[in-house]
Amino acid sequence: MEKSLASLAEFLKARVIGDGSVLIRGIGSYDTAQDGYLTFADNPRSLTHALESKASGIMVGWAATDADLKGRSGISVENPRLAFALLLQLFNPDPVATGSIHPTAVLGKDVQIDKPVDIGANAFIGDRARIGKGTIIDPGTYIGNDVSIGENCRIGPNVAVYHHCVIGSRVRLFAGVIIGGDGFGYVFDRDHYERVPQIGNVVIEDDVEIGCNSCVDRATIGSTRVGRGSKFDNQVQVAHNDQIGKHVILAGQVGLAGSVTIGDYSMLGGKSGVIDHLTLGKKARLGAASIATKDVPEGEIQWGYPSVRLNDSKEQMVLIRRLPELHKRIKELETRLAALERSSK
Amino acid sequence: MEKSLASLAEFLKARVIGDGSVLIRGIGSYDTAQDGYLTFADNPRSLTHALESKASGIMVGWAATDADLKGRSGISVENPRLAFALLLQLFNPDPVATGSIHPTAVLGKDVQIDKPVDIGANAFIGDRARIGKGTIIDPGTYIGNDVSIGENCRIGPNVAVYHHCVIGSRVRLFAGVIIGGDGFGYVFDRDHYERVPQIGNVVIEDDVEIGCNSCVDRATIGSTRVGRGSKFDNQVQVAHNDQIGKHVILAGQVGLAGSVTIGDYSMLGGKSGVIDHLTLGKKARLGAASIATKDVPEGEIQWGYPSVRLNDSKEQMVLIRRLPELHKRIKELETRLAALERSSK
Amino acid sequence: MEKSLASLAEFLKARVIGDGSVLIRGIGSYDTAQDGYLTFADNPRSLTHALESKASGIMVGWAATDADLKGRSGISVENPRLAFALLLQLFNPDPVATGSIHPTAVLGKDVQIDKPVDIGANAFIGDRARIGKGTIIDPGTYIGNDVSIGENCRIGPNVAVYHHCVIGSRVRLFAGVIIGGDGFGYVFDRDHYERVPQIGNVVIEDDVEIGCNSCVDRATIGSTRVGRGSKFDNQVQVAHNDQIGKHVILAGQVGLAGSVTIGDYSMLGGKSGVIDHLTLGKKARLGAASIATKDVPEGEIQWGYPSVRLNDSKEQMVLIRRLPELHKRIKELETRLAALERSSK
Repeated sequence: MEKSLASLAEFLKARVIGDGSVLIRGIGSYDTAQDGYLTFADNPRSLTHALESKASGIMVGWAATDADLKGRSGISVENPRLAFALLLQLFNPDPVATGSIHPTAVLGKDVQIDKPVDIGANAFIGDRARIGKGTIIDPGTYIGNDVSIGENCRIGPNVAVYHHCVIGSRVRLFAGVIIGGDGFGYVFDRDHYERVPQIGNVVIEDDVEIGCNSCVDRATIGSTRVGRGSKFDNQVQVAHNDQIGKHVILAGQVGLAGSVTIGDYSMLGGKSGVIDHLTLGKKARLGAASIATKDVPEGEIQWGYPSVRLNDSKEQMVLIRRLPELHKRIKELETRLAALERSSK
Repeated sequence: MEKSLASLAEFLKARVIGDGSVLIRGIGSYDTAQDGYLTFADNPRSLTHALESKASGIMVGWAATDADLKGRSGISVENPRLAFALLLQLFNPDPVATGSIHPTAVLGKDVQIDKPVDIGANAFIGDRARIGKGTIIDPGTYIGNDVSIGENCRIGPNVAVYHHCVIGSRVRLFAGVIIGGDGFGYVFDRDHYERVPQIGNVVIEDDVEIGCNSCVDRATIGSTRVGRGSKFDNQVQVAHNDQIGKHVILAGQVGLAGSVTIGDYSMLGGKSGVIDHLTLGKKARLGAASIATKDVPEGEIQWGYPSVRLNDSKEQMVLIRRLPELHKRIKELETRLAALERSSK
Repeated sequence: MEKSLASLAEFLKARVIGDGSVLIRGIGSYDTAQDGYLTFADNPRSLTHALESKASGIMVGWAATDADLKGRSGISVENPRLAFALLLQLFNPDPVATGSIHPTAVLGKDVQIDKPVDIGANAFIGDRARIGKGTIIDPGTYIGNDVSIGENCRIGPNVAVYHHCVIGSRVRLFAGVIIGGDGFGYVFDRDHYERVPQIGNVVIEDDVEIGCNSCVDRATIGSTRVGRGSKFDNQVQVAHNDQIGKHVILAGQVGLAGSVTIGDYSMLGGKSGVIDHLTLGKKARLGAASIATKDVPEGEIQWGYPSVRLNDSKEQMVLIRRLPELHKRIKELETRLAALERSSK
């Protein structure tokens, strides 16, 4: 695929700098971009690198002037990072389902497939599962009975989706993701634990993406829900009856206890966690490796364990580092005060 | 399945309130219970909800009086949460093995199967493996050579049990669980690490349940052991030579270093961890995201990193939050003392 | 296999104590070693245990004298732990590929196999993948298109290696490992996240070993790299564009954010983490459950969150534990100072 700078500018609703007829066949960082490639610069330093690169075009932000490109051709865009993502999508289109169902795939009874759907080698599709058109299921994946999967999904290799779970459209589950394992529910009975059967399911809305080896447990009763457009990194754990809002970011190794509610557009840093039954308001943010032990208000940024407002957390961290000094000042105060007490007698 | 309130009361050794002939066909929370369902209430607030629900029966604790049900029928039980679990089990029985071995399953040499056993599509059973009656092995699962699995187990999809491991009866392993991966053992030799072969195995006793994508490593020599009735949540890591007692709870993302001993009936909160070679006594408890760096005595509750007794941890956390105030008080003391020193000269 | 103490001593470049003709057929700890076994002792206490064991030979360090063995036979070595590892390797050789490709394995087009290679049941090998001689691929594993795997590797069951990744020689990937999942890259666009396609790959150099259910994400552009001889424990997360040096140890549940550089011979403790774009110098060490929020200089040992030098961290931890006492001392100072102020008026 080759596109002229002019056509890329039109695609991005952007402005050409220099020669719009220059042909672009790929997108790259300044150190990997070859002849025929477009690179991008969103600050003066990366612009210097871009100008030294072999790239045939340079994408810069609005603030850049034509002179900044020093005679090179390129595109001026509002948001270079976003434009970079959109061009990478353009030049690296997702694979398209061709209707190929591998002969080693095992399909249960009354499976409903809305062609074209691809099902990979040694995949297993349970009874009465429904799979929407355009969806690709990779090799070795397990889809339980009565699972529903929407259109244009990509279900990676060695994934497991347990029975009765519902997956929307354009959902991407990476390798090793497990949807609908039992929630962790037990009741102590004299000398042992009795299992609380988990008879709910998981609902994953449209445009959700879930990273490798992450898990979303089914609800005890009702549904564990992941809202539209939310993105989870690898090794994330979402527990039974959690209600994850729309466009929520959970970074790697986040762990949520049960019955947690996460507001739309919230962001949780890597390794952070939330105690059970708490609510994070819309656009809340929790720092890396922080643990929320109380509800977090809408829009608030918290950090630490227990997590507190970012500024309070910073102040605490500074003072913890200064504890040896504070300790010394207390000792000095004690010495000076004792001297004064003696002299005043 | 339909059961009268009277027969459910007999099953639970409980007392009927109102009309014992009311038929129940399912169990639900107050907001999901329909006509024909039984719901439960273990406090006044949930009782209010239950009374407003469409449920045909309400299960309440001993303390509730007939009048509390305001003319509705129900059951009075000693422990509503336990009764709820037992009724959910009654109305949602586990699947029963029918002796179905899928034609795509691959069985090694001299596999011993005590019928009926179900083996799913594309599962692999290694040489000389033994599988007890009533056990169900889901699709895509790998059972290594010389593995022994007891009766009435449920081994989920895409599980891996490495060679020579021993699994008891009524064990449930969820999708992605890995039993018997090599322990993490290396010795540094001048400029590189030499592997210490891990020639032990893993022994999982009866009634253990292990959540999705959790791992239990094999011992260097001897056995890593998980005691009877213990329950692990998702993404738990148990290292080589760990000795987990009976009826131990490990919540999500717990990580234990090697050669750790966990006493019976201990409970470890989500994301908590234990340094290598430590012992947690019986009924010890470790809080969420806490790290034990010393042995924990029997029955003690610890929190924090390094973990300390719960009350000490709370006091520390309160004082950390008050550090800005303590700092201010130290500054004031310094100012006032300096003034006094000047005036006393 | 049986070996005389004399031949084992020659293999280890070590010295025989007592009867060199004693035959050894296995290696064991003092409590598992039977007749015909060699056990080892690297301190006086373990020597006492070894002398009480049924082992036919005892391996001790240089410092031990012949008299220490009290008439028992054995071997005196420079480094008993290393010798123990090497003998375990000798007596427990890795399985050797026999050229067995299971009939249920699915191979894509133009796969290049350098015989002998073993491919297990229900494994999937993508188009144009290359697999070096001596490599064993276990059942249920997914190898994507254009993947390259070197010689004498062991790829465990239910592993996934995504397209275009490169694996060196003598690499061991344990069950559930995922190599080359998409890096976690999104750009916010008004009301939703746009995906940044991840068009790079992962390069795993020779002699790397990666534990169960660990993940290494592919680079956005370029390569995520794991240097020669590095060893990862279970459930480790390595993000896009990370550059892991040679002979790096990542213990269980370590999580690295994106674009992190880890110097050669560094060691990261269990559950530790590193914020994105940071660099840990060569031979840096990060304590268990510690989070690096700034670069760590070469050779430095850090602990805590945010991680600081080990001694500073210890001092902080001690003073945090002493906060109740410090608080009390501040209150006493206030009382005494107030008294003095009153008396001085």
